[in-house]
Amino acid sequence: MTSPRTIGIGLLGLGTVGQGVWKHLSEKQNDLASRLGVNLDLRRAAVRNLRKARSVKIPKNKITLDPYEVIDDPKVHVVCELIGGTTKARELTLRALRLGKVVVSANKALLCEHGPEIFAAVRKHGGQFLFEASVAGGVPIIKALREGLVANRFDLIVGILNGTCNHILTRMGEDGLSFADALKEAQALGYAEANPTLDVEGIDAFHKASILAWLAHGKWAPRQRALVEGIRNIGPADIDFARRFGLALKHLAVIRRDFNAGWMTVGVYPALVPNREILARVSGVNNGITLRGDVVGATTLAGRGAGGDATASAVIGDIVDAIAALTSGARQGLSSDDLASRERLGKSVRMGDLDEIISPFYLRLSLLDKAGVSEGIYRIFSKYKVSIARVIQYEHPNQGRGTVTLSTYPVSEAKMAKVLKGLKSLKTVLEEPVVLRIFSPET
Amino acid sequence: MTSPRTIGIGLLGLGTVGQGVWKHLSEKQNDLASRLGVNLDLRRAAVRNLRKARSVKIPKNKITLDPYEVIDDPKVHVVCELIGGTTKARELTLRALRLGKVVVSANKALLCEHGPEIFAAVRKHGGQFLFEASVAGGVPIIKALREGLVANRFDLIVGILNGTCNHILTRMGEDGLSFADALKEAQALGYAEANPTLDVEGIDAFHKASILAWLAHGKWAPRQRALVEGIRNIGPADIDFARRFGLALKHLAVIRRDFNAGWMTVGVYPALVPNREILARVSGVNNGITLRGDVVGATTLAGRGAGGDATASAVIGDIVDAIAALTSGARQGLSSDDLASRERLGKSVRMGDLDEIISPFYLRLSLLDKAGVSEGIYRIFSKYKVSIARVIQYEHPNQGRGTVTLSTYPVSEAKMAKVLKGLKSLKTVLEEPVVLRIFSPET
Repeated sequence: MTSPRTIGIGLLGLGTVGQGVWKHLSEKQNDLASRLGVNLDLRRAAVRNLRKARSVKIPKNKITLDPYEVIDDPKVHVVCELIGGTTKARELTLRALRLGKVVVSANKALLCEHGPEIFAAVRKHGGQFLFEASVAGGVPIIKALREGLVANRFDLIVGILNGTCNHILTRMGEDGLSFADALKEAQALGYAEANPTLDVEGIDAFHKASILAWLAHGKWAPRQRALVEGIRNIGPADIDFARRFGLALKHLAVIRRDFNAGWMTVGVYPALVPNREILARVSGVNNGITLRGDVVGATTLAGRGAGGDATASAVIGDIVDAIAALTSGARQGLSSDDLASRERLGKSVRMGDLDEIISPFYLRLSLLDKAGVSEGIYRIFSKYKVSIARVIQYEHPNQGRGTVTLSTYPVSEAKMAKVLKGLKSLKTVLEEPVVLRIFSPET
Repeated sequence: MTSPRTIGIGLLGLGTVGQGVWKHLSEKQNDLASRLGVNLDLRRAAVRNLRKARSVKIPKNKITLDPYEVIDDPKVHVVCELIGGTTKARELTLRALRLGKVVVSANKALLCEHGPEIFAAVRKHGGQFLFEASVAGGVPIIKALREGLVANRFDLIVGILNGTCNHILTRMGEDGLSFADALKEAQALGYAEANPTLDVEGIDAFHKASILAWLAHGKWAPRQRALVEGIRNIGPADIDFARRFGLALKHLAVIRRDFNAGWMTVGVYPALVPNREILARVSGVNNGITLRGDVVGATTLAGRGAGGDATASAVIGDIVDAIAALTSGARQGLSSDDLASRERLGKSVRMGDLDEIISPFYLRLSLLDKAGVSEGIYRIFSKYKVSIARVIQYEHPNQGRGTVTLSTYPVSEAKMAKVLKGLKSLKTVLEEPVVLRIFSPET
């Protein structure tokens, strides 16, 4: 290339991620430009408030209140959508795609809810939609799944996809904080939103799991067919059980696929993970994902899952991919052929029956403290032929009640549901039992 | 693309990796072809022995003794060099590159020794050289470093890059095997060669470390300016010390870079890694690499480092990248601009002074068992103001000697060399001390 082309980049949103992108892209402009053989032009960022204090210095004429000044600018080739939400973001994303532009997005909710519409626009208008930043921040999981490990079919994908949950569970498990205190701390540190529902109830992790499941298997998992549980019920007795038996409490996303039977399942729930698993070592706000491929075996990627800079790193990675493709005339991201083949693939996949998933379980029961209580409990397990592996019994003599924590040998969700129904029918079981799965790659 | 092109693929070598590539590529031909919108033609494999028993069935007319029948075939667009070695492999690789073809290689020694020549041929003739399989088998580390994390500068890259060493150290550490027995087992399992020198003396790991260092910093590290140590001297007392203090024995590759001072160092050596580090959990034949980037923070990738299938997965990933590029007219792999910019980058990097690298150390001393021996030892540490953190002393009363294992606070290599010289000058120190570094990301 003798006369380098100029590639214009525009940002929608200048929150933590947007500021990180602007800052690092400015700092590395020369290096990246020389690697790519192009000129980079950071043209403009659209914001909601011109006067908000920002840590990165941007000339006034490069900031606008009007997102269409970014999208419609013919000199902007790459639009980074970093505003979040699914209404305005959808409108702006589709507008940019209809203009045949490259959209780089960190918006998992948008992709999860409007994936088919977005990719239809990509295929129709020849633009691109790149979304490395939408799952696991700085961990290049999308690229690994889509490109590096393309030779594989994945029968198991398991990940820690929500940094807020992982921070809370790490503080509870390693430092003895209560859920409420760990959540407060996460909010104070900026890891959790004022309204933490999306994070602690597993919805954010479900969005990310859906994206991984679609990439791997071509099918968008309907929320009502997935298992989505949060971490609000975790308490000190659960932490204690985990510590005693070499387990770590993690909020997992688990995508299982049976290629012979044709099903996949998507589950997002707190689980006990044996300490020997690498994922058990992924702590704090970090994310980690283990992919099990038929050719490569298990590969794990771990790193910062949240934070402006980690996500900015992923956005910049996508921008660079987009530029490499734009300047060579190639298509980066998912090509039409790739999207079409993924669509075909997805047609042969059905959502599996969650009831049939088998794993060891952990239960915490709050019991009336009187003679014969244990016997009644064990009779239920025995009735459904569920074997108990380990038990810890705590007395709370002054309160007239006790706590029992226990784990079972592997058993199906359906059978465990029956056991739970039986337990809840007992008058001696005082509260809703807390149920956790024990993660085992083998089952 | 209305009329799909046919892409021809040829293999040089049909060992474990070659057979894995042929097998999985045949099995997934239709799926990959539909994703890529092309026809795939597995044209031919060159071997040294036509009659050797192979686990994969290949029609006779697709096997040849003549590698040039593969390379020179105008219908072969992608040549996979899987024969290893650096003489014949260099000749064949350069021939294919001069024909403007894509070469996919698992050959770390070749790349490490002839990298500049190979990339000069790429730039001159417009071909491609892809080498994901050369480092860490199925772990997509090259792609992560080169593309996904392109926004970053890496001041620390630390990895377990040799599966044989890691298998041996895991068996010694977790199951109490001696080095000799663990090596024998690795050989029986096919993890280690009959002549294990390249693996256990750190040379293979150094090759891989050089490739990562070059990718990250643009400079090929000369072997004589690197620290290259193997694992032959590790013994039970070292394992015992590690276990007692929450450390894991790992053979590490450590690439440090100071962007202000302008230096990089490359070291490959056995080290003690705190159990809280994710790398401490990378066991058996697995590999793992942690990259510390200025934007993204620490990202770790781990998975099978060796074995035909894991490496085959990486080779197929590269083949797919190559095809995507060939069909779109784009350049995959390192573009000319990228190579030129890397070369410029490398010119500003010098090999750092290893002497100045600081870390905590571990020492094992074999001592004459008589009064006053310890005092003499401690006097040396004291003379050089090196503080001891932990000590274990073992008696071997019947042998007239004892063993001391100890760790120090962080100290420079230069200072430790002085301490060692002092210790070795003592008549009470009976054998060459065993010295290990204690890995700490902070130093």
